[in-house]
Amino acid sequence: VDQVAQEFSEQHRVVYYDTEVTGEMGIGKLVDMMMLASEDHSDSVGVTTKKVLGLGLGWVITQHLLTINRLPKNNEVVTVKTKAASYNPYFCYRDFWVKAADGTTLAKMHTVFVLMDQEKRKITRIVPELVAPFESEFTKKIERNPLPKAPQTITARHDYGVRFMDIDSNHHVNNVHYFDWMLDVLGADFLIKHRLKEMNIQYKQEVRYGQVATSEVEISGLTTNHQIKVGSELSCLATCRWEER
Amino acid sequence: VDQVAQEFSEQHRVVYYDTEVTGEMGIGKLVDMMMLASEDHSDSVGVTTKKVLGLGLGWVITQHLLTINRLPKNNEVVTVKTKAASYNPYFCYRDFWVKAADGTTLAKMHTVFVLMDQEKRKITRIVPELVAPFESEFTKKIERNPLPKAPQTITARHDYGVRFMDIDSNHHVNNVHYFDWMLDVLGADFLIKHRLKEMNIQYKQEVRYGQVATSEVEISGLTTNHQIKVGSELSCLATCRWEER
Repeated sequence: VDQVAQEFSEQHRVVYYDTEVTGEMGIGKLVDMMMLASEDHSDSVGVTTKKVLGLGLGWVITQHLLTINRLPKNNEVVTVKTKAASYNPYFCYRDFWVKAADGTTLAKMHTVFVLMDQEKRKITRIVPELVAPFESEFTKKIERNPLPKAPQTITARHDYGVRFMDIDSNHHVNNVHYFDWMLDVLGADFLIKHRLKEMNIQYKQEVRYGQVATSEVEISGLTTNHQIKVGSELSCLATCRWEER
Repeated sequence: VDQVAQEFSEQHRVVYYDTEVTGEMGIGKLVDMMMLASEDHSDSVGVTTKKVLGLGLGWVITQHLLTINRLPKNNEVVTVKTKAASYNPYFCYRDFWVKAADGTTLAKMHTVFVLMDQEKRKITRIVPELVAPFESEFTKKIERNPLPKAPQTITARHDYGVRFMDIDSNHHVNNVHYFDWMLDVLGADFLIKHRLKEMNIQYKQEVRYGQVATSEVEISGLTTNHQIKVGSELSCLATCRWEER
């Protein structure tokens, strides 16, 4: 296996509109930046979105496991590295690293993808020609990643209408908006006094334009458990671990 | 006057999260990109935000006059040019151009800035040392730019809570979020079937975290008149001119 061929990296300058009141990059923006590296990696080996759509398929993210050492600051130039780590008949696993100029790792993310049959709206077997170019490892083993915990008692709740700006050219809500809905509900006081260290987010059901996403959270010390619902339907779960600032 | 010294330009790659369902860059993102060029221009001549704040002052935008020929597309690399055009005792005027690789102008913007005394929260006279480095022209003439028209009959109305992600390190709502509030209220059907050609937006009063921005619009053929209110207080006005797609 040619390890070099598997890895892709690109630089990103964090600019003022990527940052929040803390002067640090927002979590949604951090994940946006990593997903861009994944798209650019795919384009660079010829597995374009167009090609995937041409087969009647689409990549769907089912889980992100994010670990943050330090969030990038305004004007910082970071390097995003990514690698299609491995796949089995139904899941693809991709790793991301965000590195500072001095080489220290600012954040890591492990992401689980599945392939969706666009017409049947059902998960389908991984198509070898879509993963071969990444030279990722085939394994029969299905990962047993920890799952987020649903909130038991709701500490805070807020409704977010899906905006026109939230939908992409496939009429889907960019996964990243779930981060904003989940974190905003915690309120400025909590968000200014705490630093996110880990986030485990699992996508269950797509939210569509015109719907209202209800974001609910249980704050339990330095752990927060989140869910996004559309009516009574569960759309997304997440568990976050924080430290005091 | 050294014309070269006055101009600043930088490149920007439009990426998937800058674009909307149309595959084109969002209006808020377009203005974000131009404002970044303005910040980078200011930094390059030593008029940093830190220096301005150190004098107890802050730049405040009072009006943008935006003209769009064509919106940048996903993955397009554009050049943003900007120039501090002129100033008089109370106003600074800045021009922006967004250019395609072949040199054609995709969008233009004319922006009016004032200086705010941070303690008194009042507009103050332009401080020469903050404008001299741009080599912009001093003029006694105050521009008489057309003003947006307030909506007379409300066609649509929607409330937007200010999110934690909307506020910057000065605890202000980034001006760009007003674009999202003003345009989203038009609805997907209108936004997909029309192309924005001109937008004249005037900022009256800041919206703060925790407040609810009520976005109201009057749709009158290919002209839309917008206002943002917080309770009964007028925060922002805009008039847009559209063409059918």
